[in-house]
Amino acid sequence: EVGELQQLRFMLNKGLRPAEVAHLLEKTPPRERQILWNLLNQELEGEVLQYLGDDAQAEILSRMEASEVLAITESLETDDMADILQQLPDRVMKELLQIMDTENRSRVEQVLSYPEDTAGGLMNTDTVTIRPDITVETVLRYLRRHKEIPETTDTLFVVSRKGSYIGVLPLTRLLTTDPDVMVREVMNTDVDAIAADMPDEEVARLFEQLDLISAPVTDTDGHLLGRITIDDVVDVIREDADHSLMSMAGLDEDEDTFAPVMKTTRRRAVWLGINLITAFIASAVIGLFEDTLDRVVALAVLMPIVASMGGIAGSQTLTLVIRGQALGHVERSNIGWLFNRELIVGALNGLLWALVVAVVAVLWFQDMTVGVVIALAIVINLLAGAMAGTLLPMILKSLGIDPALAGSVLLTTITDVVGFFAFLGLATLFFA
Amino acid sequence: EVGELQQLRFMLNKGLRPAEVAHLLEKTPPRERQILWNLLNQELEGEVLQYLGDDAQAEILSRMEASEVLAITESLETDDMADILQQLPDRVMKELLQIMDTENRSRVEQVLSYPEDTAGGLMNTDTVTIRPDITVETVLRYLRRHKEIPETTDTLFVVSRKGSYIGVLPLTRLLTTDPDVMVREVMNTDVDAIAADMPDEEVARLFEQLDLISAPVTDTDGHLLGRITIDDVVDVIREDADHSLMSMAGLDEDEDTFAPVMKTTRRRAVWLGINLITAFIASAVIGLFEDTLDRVVALAVLMPIVASMGGIAGSQTLTLVIRGQALGHVERSNIGWLFNRELIVGALNGLLWALVVAVVAVLWFQDMTVGVVIALAIVINLLAGAMAGTLLPMILKSLGIDPALAGSVLLTTITDVVGFFAFLGLATLFFA
Repeated sequence: EVGELQQLRFMLNKGLRPAEVAHLLEKTPPRERQILWNLLNQELEGEVLQYLGDDAQAEILSRMEASEVLAITESLETDDMADILQQLPDRVMKELLQIMDTENRSRVEQVLSYPEDTAGGLMNTDTVTIRPDITVETVLRYLRRHKEIPETTDTLFVVSRKGSYIGVLPLTRLLTTDPDVMVREVMNTDVDAIAADMPDEEVARLFEQLDLISAPVTDTDGHLLGRITIDDVVDVIREDADHSLMSMAGLDEDEDTFAPVMKTTRRRAVWLGINLITAFIASAVIGLFEDTLDRVVALAVLMPIVASMGGIAGSQTLTLVIRGQALGHVERSNIGWLFNRELIVGALNGLLWALVVAVVAVLWFQDMTVGVVIALAIVINLLAGAMAGTLLPMILKSLGIDPALAGSVLLTTITDVVGFFAFLGLATLFFA
Repeated sequence: EVGELQQLRFMLNKGLRPAEVAHLLEKTPPRERQILWNLLNQELEGEVLQYLGDDAQAEILSRMEASEVLAITESLETDDMADILQQLPDRVMKELLQIMDTENRSRVEQVLSYPEDTAGGLMNTDTVTIRPDITVETVLRYLRRHKEIPETTDTLFVVSRKGSYIGVLPLTRLLTTDPDVMVREVMNTDVDAIAADMPDEEVARLFEQLDLISAPVTDTDGHLLGRITIDDVVDVIREDADHSLMSMAGLDEDEDTFAPVMKTTRRRAVWLGINLITAFIASAVIGLFEDTLDRVVALAVLMPIVASMGGIAGSQTLTLVIRGQALGHVERSNIGWLFNRELIVGALNGLLWALVVAVVAVLWFQDMTVGVVIALAIVINLLAGAMAGTLLPMILKSLGIDPALAGSVLLTTITDVVGFFAFLGLATLFFA
């Protein structure tokens, strides 16, 4: 038992890299996670913490004093430290900033002054800067005097005497240039600096499109503030992509897979409650047609098919449009084409499957009218699904509501209501 | 009109970067896309093509001869060229390889010999290698003689005389080291090479965990084959994350947002057909209780609520587990804890919402029995949803079936069947 603990302690502190320890913690249930965390040496805690998801970070930080948090995060890069501090309750964060030394505080406060989801919130302040009017030889000598260049440095930033950003000098170019050449002559001025208030998904798109490894960040006056590196951008890409998936199920993209029971129950309850309203609305629609249902029991048997087909078709459109929005493919200028295509696709698939369902229904209940009614209702509901799936995300986005979060609930409401209303309403007419 | 075309041609060929042109094409409907493509200069076509999604690539390539494809892809990096070739029909690909020059062919064939979703399929063969027994000074001189070092080179690879991988020398270290020191003394041998057959999602995880920019790839004998760079890994991360979202709606992660009508209709029809089977199974279950429904019409009004609540709760669990599998958090060793938590959460939320629904149902239909029946059915169905949501992805994965693709259909089948069966079955007992 003691030997095993010793082994575990060794593995956590010597055997695994901090990112691997974080991964291990993420896949461990709460009680065991706490035991593993306690076995970790204090000097590794900050390193490990920065690799954890927001939810798991907050859980661990909630049990720490401001001074402890400071002690374990002090040695981190500014952006990573700021990331962690953002998970602290306001009270603890304020306390922590007060006990910090002045230089560190001003650096952290600069990063914290930008929202977490902007270029400013992603950036790091550890840039290596050079002047344009020196030779490559001087740059090489200057670097050699440094013991270490910050990790993931692939370019040096060229700035004016006043700190204004001018251009970049990639290390690969530095290494292939004649030492006597001036920086001004070899630097690359094509690389635009990123404005500190650029949203992080736009930063990610730039990095993806230009295959960047790092990029300079400037304030509105063009002063170099810091740099963004690809490792932080990768986190943004991962989170943005997870966001749609998780939100569509009413989950948070940072959701800790092994969150404790009560936390999970509370979060899920909200989503179930919202969906219950949807379900009641659908029931109310069915309730309008109690008399018809009472007369033709086959309708009760078949009605879920109409709602379900509309819901599935609508979700396909919704998912495609939400992903299209996230990738920046879908916008006002091309939504018209998409709307038309979805409508045509909905009509074609509606006709196809309406026919199939009608044939089965007629054979099953030996009633032609039931077949006609369900066929019409399916076509109507697939068209409704296509329209809702295309327009809902556009409308929600323009209202500033997250389409991934609200879209699926609203879509189901629409396809349920339209599906039941069309099917039972038509049946009431036909069987009257 | 002619002036506008001229402007457009200028923008495509001079104004925008290839990645931006690709982004523009991705958000353009088919006919206009073809027009834009035709305005593009041939020497840019390959560059643009490599930034397009697989689906859009295949569409454009389908209209080209082998010799044209060769002409526009010849200047690309080997891995990017191989990526594009993989979208070609087999016949065209064979033809293309035959007309290629021998050196290029052998390089492309080496990359193609590894599946697209492995390290070998991701790698590039343009590595800069050095020997351990030379000085830093020699390395610097050797690099200066090169006019250009491949883009995104952040490390040089140290190899033995026989081409075996030994370690890496980061450019940042090269620049801060005394020129007289031997490579052997400053190189980093901690960085493990990636085996060519490592699955790409594992490669992505390594890059994320170790904040890598590039990594060496070796064959089973330890010979350096090439290197993987972060820009290709970012694509893997984006696609893996999109995969779950899109698959759960029965869509492909490479799906072209602006695919033409017939292609879209065909693909969607398959998914609707599969879901129709689910819907019919649910209907068949309802059909078993026609007599009960005939007697108590309130049951028809309320039954969608039971199915819907179970489906929603089950989807939340399913989504969480599928994301957990993708992140490597959920596995055999911890699924037991997760299963228990989901069951407890399901029971708690089941009890809460069962109570709410029961009260509403009793007030609505002035019937205590209906309230009791629906309360019991909701608890049962939320438990079924929790079980199915946890176990289905584990079972599917162990069978080699993609949980994101098959999971949601199977889950809905289970929660519909259990929901209708429990509700109508209990009602039959209680109202007998």
